[in-house]
Amino acid sequence: MQTLATGCDDYEGHRPDPRTIGPMPKSRTEAFSDGVFAIAITLLIIEVRVPSSRAGDLAGDLAHQWPSYAAYVVSFAIIGVIWVNHHDIFERITTVDRPLLFLNLLLLLTVAFLPFPTALLGEYIRKGDNAHVAAAVYGANMALIGLAFIAMWTYLVRTPSLLAAEVGAEGARRARRAAAIGPVLYGLSIPLAFVSPVACLVVYAALALYFGIAFTVSARDDELTGTH
Amino acid sequence: MQTLATGCDDYEGHRPDPRTIGPMPKSRTEAFSDGVFAIAITLLIIEVRVPSSRAGDLAGDLAHQWPSYAAYVVSFAIIGVIWVNHHDIFERITTVDRPLLFLNLLLLLTVAFLPFPTALLGEYIRKGDNAHVAAAVYGANMALIGLAFIAMWTYLVRTPSLLAAEVGAEGARRARRAAAIGPVLYGLSIPLAFVSPVACLVVYAALALYFGIAFTVSARDDELTGTH
Amino acid sequence: MQTLATGCDDYEGHRPDPRTIGPMPKSRTEAFSDGVFAIAITLLIIEVRVPSSRAGDLAGDLAHQWPSYAAYVVSFAIIGVIWVNHHDIFERITTVDRPLLFLNLLLLLTVAFLPFPTALLGEYIRKGDNAHVAAAVYGANMALIGLAFIAMWTYLVRTPSLLAAEVGAEGARRARRAAAIGPVLYGLSIPLAFVSPVACLVVYAALALYFGIAFTVSARDDELTGTH
Amino acid sequence: MQTLATGCDDYEGHRPDPRTIGPMPKSRTEAFSDGVFAIAITLLIIEVRVPSSRAGDLAGDLAHQWPSYAAYVVSFAIIGVIWVNHHDIFERITTVDRPLLFLNLLLLLTVAFLPFPTALLGEYIRKGDNAHVAAAVYGANMALIGLAFIAMWTYLVRTPSLLAAEVGAEGARRARRAAAIGPVLYGLSIPLAFVSPVACLVVYAALALYFGIAFTVSARDDELTGTH
Repeated sequence: MQTLATGCDDYEGHRPDPRTIGPMPKSRTEAFSDGVFAIAITLLIIEVRVPSSRAGDLAGDLAHQWPSYAAYVVSFAIIGVIWVNHHDIFERITTVDRPLLFLNLLLLLTVAFLPFPTALLGEYIRKGDNAHVAAAVYGANMALIGLAFIAMWTYLVRTPSLLAAEVGAEGARRARRAAAIGPVLYGLSIPLAFVSPVACLVVYAALALYFGIAFTVSARDDELTGTH
Repeated sequence: MQTLATGCDDYEGHRPDPRTIGPMPKSRTEAFSDGVFAIAITLLIIEVRVPSSRAGDLAGDLAHQWPSYAAYVVSFAIIGVIWVNHHDIFERITTVDRPLLFLNLLLLLTVAFLPFPTALLGEYIRKGDNAHVAAAVYGANMALIGLAFIAMWTYLVRTPSLLAAEVGAEGARRARRAAAIGPVLYGLSIPLAFVSPVACLVVYAALALYFGIAFTVSARDDELTGTH
Repeated sequence: MQTLATGCDDYEGHRPDPRTIGPMPKSRTEAFSDGVFAIAITLLIIEVRVPSSRAGDLAGDLAHQWPSYAAYVVSFAIIGVIWVNHHDIFERITTVDRPLLFLNLLLLLTVAFLPFPTALLGEYIRKGDNAHVAAAVYGANMALIGLAFIAMWTYLVRTPSLLAAEVGAEGARRARRAAAIGPVLYGLSIPLAFVSPVACLVVYAALALYFGIAFTVSARDDELTGTH
Repeated sequence: MQTLATGCDDYEGHRPDPRTIGPMPKSRTEAFSDGVFAIAITLLIIEVRVPSSRAGDLAGDLAHQWPSYAAYVVSFAIIGVIWVNHHDIFERITTVDRPLLFLNLLLLLTVAFLPFPTALLGEYIRKGDNAHVAAAVYGANMALIGLAFIAMWTYLVRTPSLLAAEVGAEGARRARRAAAIGPVLYGLSIPLAFVSPVACLVVYAALALYFGIAFTVSARDDELTGTH
């Protein structure tokens, strides 16, 4: 009965939801996070610079800065997949308490940072030297994003009261395992950066695809096993 | 009955909607897309630069950079129309599955890129040389946006289960035909870029108007034929 | 009865609202417009530049660029008031048709442009010369915003079917009269720009206050006369 | 009964809520404010610049600009906590009248300004000189944010009709006391800026943590005393 009116009461607020310990309802946290993802993903383009070309040089100069476009596409895909996976978390919980709220802000902090290594990578692969450092910074940022995801899942494993009944600590543990591969692989990409920065870009693109597909499969599993 | 409370359950989430196969409800996808459109459209202005003018020169310098204002207006109109047409898609479907979600991200990727060729076009029409390359890049970006729209409609034609009952595969096929003219015309504009970049700007503005009006008419048709 | 579920059906979409001729529900238009206002108002700060100061000079250099802070505050207040007045329009209508949708995009186009003359005004009042041109451009932008508001109200006067029953064409006519003072005063400010650009800034701030208060009073009137 | 459908009627609007004196419903004000917070927090990264490094210098140059990363993290944490505390206000009120609307815009104006002193602090701690001025400006901005919060609470203390019944003027007075410590501490940080700008950064981070925890405790108190 009482759920009838809860559609948006985050943004209504005069009927505080007794399930939210601390003042932030889950839906408002999710809307705020979506806003940060949408802005970060759209800001990526302002790091792609208009070259100052002399007559006849523009086509060549534009072609020459292909790493900026590649970095744009890879980071766009990555933030898109993060957005989808972030939603997966919020679909599995019923309540956001203060610690989870701050862990979520920590995740947003690492995601909103990504436009910086994206610009770095585009600039220095183009320049040729220093590219390995740029790729290593990018990989480190990605590893931090992965760690923030794991921190959220770990907290949820230990605080199952926040989880939807049909998920439970076991479901959170399973999700944490699926997420754990991220920091490991991104961490491993850091030494690769010193061999071939371009290979790193390819690996980051591949990992974005993997996480996009892996969670799709895990969502299907949930349905097949009837836990969803 | 159960639809009574679903107004915003995207952002509530504790009552997962059984119609969404995979974890992303349609409404949240639409809100995220709207966020990207709103940011991309508002970011256009930061590519219009404050000139460094000497005493008495500002009026002339501002007049001289008219292509930047023209490019701002054309891209603003284009993203505005894209926003409207994107909504048309989402009004005709009931469910977002994973492939559609990623096709939608692909569309957003191409739309969020538009501020870059917009800046390019404003800059190089002003400079006089290289403008044909800038116009061709702009046309290519627009053609990619059109292709992303067609990819979404094609997927919907093949996956009619995602469509609202009153639309059906036939309605999706009709919408795809209406959308198909975009990449064709934008593709044709690329050779025009090498004749007259300014003419391209005019064509892009005209196409924005066309798509704004065409879909209005098609929406009217739907009503007349009672399919809406 | 059927209103029970309409809370957010803009972002649900599977139950198209028969009142919306054409595909865009009022609520989604309003949310998109709010997004553009929120982005434009927050982007203003990136036009305030970090000065390159030598040791001991930063305090003086920061003080010297006071016009940028003043322009930030005035434009922030203006967009804030526009946001409030825009909501007033949407509270008085029940439906958005295609022409109104495009008039609304026209308004957003003029509002999203404002960060440019804001940066111009801050920069050139600081520099001392050319400031009158910058102030005139700012005034012209404001006059265009005012004209876009009048265009919306004029369309509503002629299309009373979009208005809430308790408003009617007469209410729209009254609102248009209140709005009409804007372009007149902003137009008059353009010659003032050539006398004193700083005086223009003061006038723009005063007008923002006026529109904030005027509509408050008009809202009160509505209540007193029981039409609200 | 009538609250059943009010979940999102802010963005529906055809059923104006009789509780909102003046035209702006609380929920739309909150959504707009959230948008500004999300944009301001995500814009912080564009002030972190890609260094122009020669071959082999990038790692050192990136390490050298650590103050920009530190300023990014601190400001991100601060805006995050402001977002949470802002929600606390809106959970305690039922209505937004015009004066509160404009006090809220005043708060947003001071928060949206923060990316500027953040960039200033990152730049000048790195450069070594002028850093005390940058830190003082940052502290002054924070003090203004605190004063804007106090202005809102003071208005609510004097206008208890806007407050939820279970909060009352006494609850608003208590919240104002908790908020009052902000401007005092931030004001005191201004002289500290002239001793050690880096110490200021540490203090700002500590204060963000304090306000995050303090309000969590106060939310718990509310629950313990049953006023929530």
